Amino acid sequence: MTKPLLTVLEGAEVKCPPVWLMRQAGRYLPEYREVRSRAGGFLDLCYSPALAAEVTLQPITRFGFDAAIIFSDILVVPHALGQGVRFEEGHGPVLDAIRDRQGLSGLSREGVTERLAPVYEAISTVASRLPSATALIGFCGAPWTLASYMIEGGSSRDFLEVKRWAYGDPDAFAQLIDLLTDACAEHLGRQIDAGAEVVQIFDSWAGVLSSREFERWCVAPMQAIVARLGDSHPGVPVIGFPRGAGLGYEAYGLRTGVTAVGLDTTVPLPWAVEAVDAIVQGNLDPALLVVGGAPLRAEISRIRQVVGDKPFIFNLGHGVVPQTPPENVALLVEWLRQ
Amino acid sequence: MTKPLLTVLEGAEVKCPPVWLMRQAGRYLPEYREVRSRAGGFLDLCYSPALAAEVTLQPITRFGFDAAIIFSDILVVPHALGQGVRFEEGHGPVLDAIRDRQGLSGLSREGVTERLAPVYEAISTVASRLPSATALIGFCGAPWTLASYMIEGGSSRDFLEVKRWAYGDPDAFAQLIDLLTDACAEHLGRQIDAGAEVVQIFDSWAGVLSSREFERWCVAPMQAIVARLGDSHPGVPVIGFPRGAGLGYEAYGLRTGVTAVGLDTTVPLPWAVEAVDAIVQGNLDPALLVVGGAPLRAEISRIRQVVGDKPFIFNLGHGVVPQTPPENVALLVEWLRQ
Repeated sequence: MTKPLLTVLEGAEVKCPPVWLMRQAGRYLPEYREVRSRAGGFLDLCYSPALAAEVTLQPITRFGFDAAIIFSDILVVPHALGQGVRFEEGHGPVLDAIRDRQGLSGLSREGVTERLAPVYEAISTVASRLPSATALIGFCGAPWTLASYMIEGGSSRDFLEVKRWAYGDPDAFAQLIDLLTDACAEHLGRQIDAGAEVVQIFDSWAGVLSSREFERWCVAPMQAIVARLGDSHPGVPVIGFPRGAGLGYEAYGLRTGVTAVGLDTTVPLPWAVEAVDAIVQGNLDPALLVVGGAPLRAEISRIRQVVGDKPFIFNLGHGVVPQTPPENVALLVEWLRQ
Repeated sequence: MTKPLLTVLEGAEVKCPPVWLMRQAGRYLPEYREVRSRAGGFLDLCYSPALAAEVTLQPITRFGFDAAIIFSDILVVPHALGQGVRFEEGHGPVLDAIRDRQGLSGLSREGVTERLAPVYEAISTVASRLPSATALIGFCGAPWTLASYMIEGGSSRDFLEVKRWAYGDPDAFAQLIDLLTDACAEHLGRQIDAGAEVVQIFDSWAGVLSSREFERWCVAPMQAIVARLGDSHPGVPVIGFPRGAGLGYEAYGLRTGVTAVGLDTTVPLPWAVEAVDAIVQGNLDPALLVVGGAPLRAEISRIRQVVGDKPFIFNLGHGVVPQTPPENVALLVEWLRQ
């Protein structure tokens, strides 16, 4: 049986755009909260193959999405490189911030994929249990976004520490980016070996850089990762998600070599389907999934009308928020497929 | 004596672009921290004409910028409309959030400009003390950004409450936007009466909306404010700053009627000087002012080269951050004017 997501990523036509949602396995689902409550910490859930597989499959069972995305976190890569990473309830991630060249020496590429073996095991488990038309997506964070978390020690308002380093000592910063580029390419390759059929790379903080720094720290490393995967795993589609890149989406589509780009909510879809040289995915505002009803339905229609019969992957412009009523997600899938 | 900022805003050529910086009066200056420490709360500082005038003039005295911007806060408008607003040290603003139509009824346009009289008094004081080549800028927050603070109750990560209202009950939300449009136009008009020669409107959260909602809640109200000021105070230049608008900058320049647009850091300057139908201002990354040295100097040169002899206002893409060494600001002005 064919998988609509893979068909679209080959550039072929399908009757209805395939749909999956970023953070489709998450706190808005009661069955997720149930598993989460018995998993211990958030990283314990990520590193438990059985539980990670279970929550990955939950939204597939409930909504019949066209793709599952493995339940994990972008920060497992810094963690596997040797950095301290904790998730505190209601506070987001906290990392033992790296502040200088010396901090880099505490990171080691040795044994990274061994430490990430539970992720690959979860992928194998999910691959064996998925419906035959459902694709499986692996993922990682992009080097710039990972470096931001690693240097800021968590989320940031102004990204001052990471920019201070990137602008003030670009050679040392490039060492970190290169290390992350290697680790990401390897982590994605191993996910593909384990059964991922598509990979998505999340550059969540691409939108805080000036256009020249975006080229250097987002576009170039992405190009390197795509090229590496093209050698090691030819033919596997890569989706890039440079959130907030604005006009940068054009350069990103043109120069990274990605198969598809995820559009954040702010990108005008009519512009993107013309200007971005890649298949597009996105970009429904997650807030509309909370609102539901007529406004949601109208936006689904508008999106379908804008993309017409161009290859397109239906998704949000950002992750599902915890306040989302699951019944709105069911309606989204139903209305989309009508 | 002519004022370079006003000359540029008339579209005429000047030898060197005029320069001022968003948040040029602020915590990075020891003399500001000194005044702040004896002002009581942050709002007390905003509402003390003598102290607000003093801190407004500090960066003019120290650096010789081409413009002073009155020291105040965008949240004085919700405060004057009757909403509870507090500033907590290290936490940013906290507002008594408005959550529904009923909450709107607690707001009143009556007496708004009376309550904001200290702002106008501070402007008069500054106007009488400024060097003759230095322009005076008044400002307010844009309706969408003010509504976000008013409904979220402060800063927000996902802007879910304000979007829930804007998408789910647009008619009620439009009442709030209309109220704010009126209050902003009036507040700006009074600032001009008091001596402001230019006004800037900060739409700090313009970058969280989809392109259609951006048109409705950012472009349209801005157009209304500009039109109102064009009637009441013809010839006074208006600078709009729709931070994060990305491609939306094009529509914003074309349809709002602003004289100039402030570009955030992510906008590619070469694109903006061609595509945006207004004089441009911006967009140096504030992090470069922290880094200083060769990277700062190189970026100043690049910006000057990109804009050539087009009318341009040198500024940051966002406010000066507290970690900025004041000596870097002095060097910026020196290098720019060389």
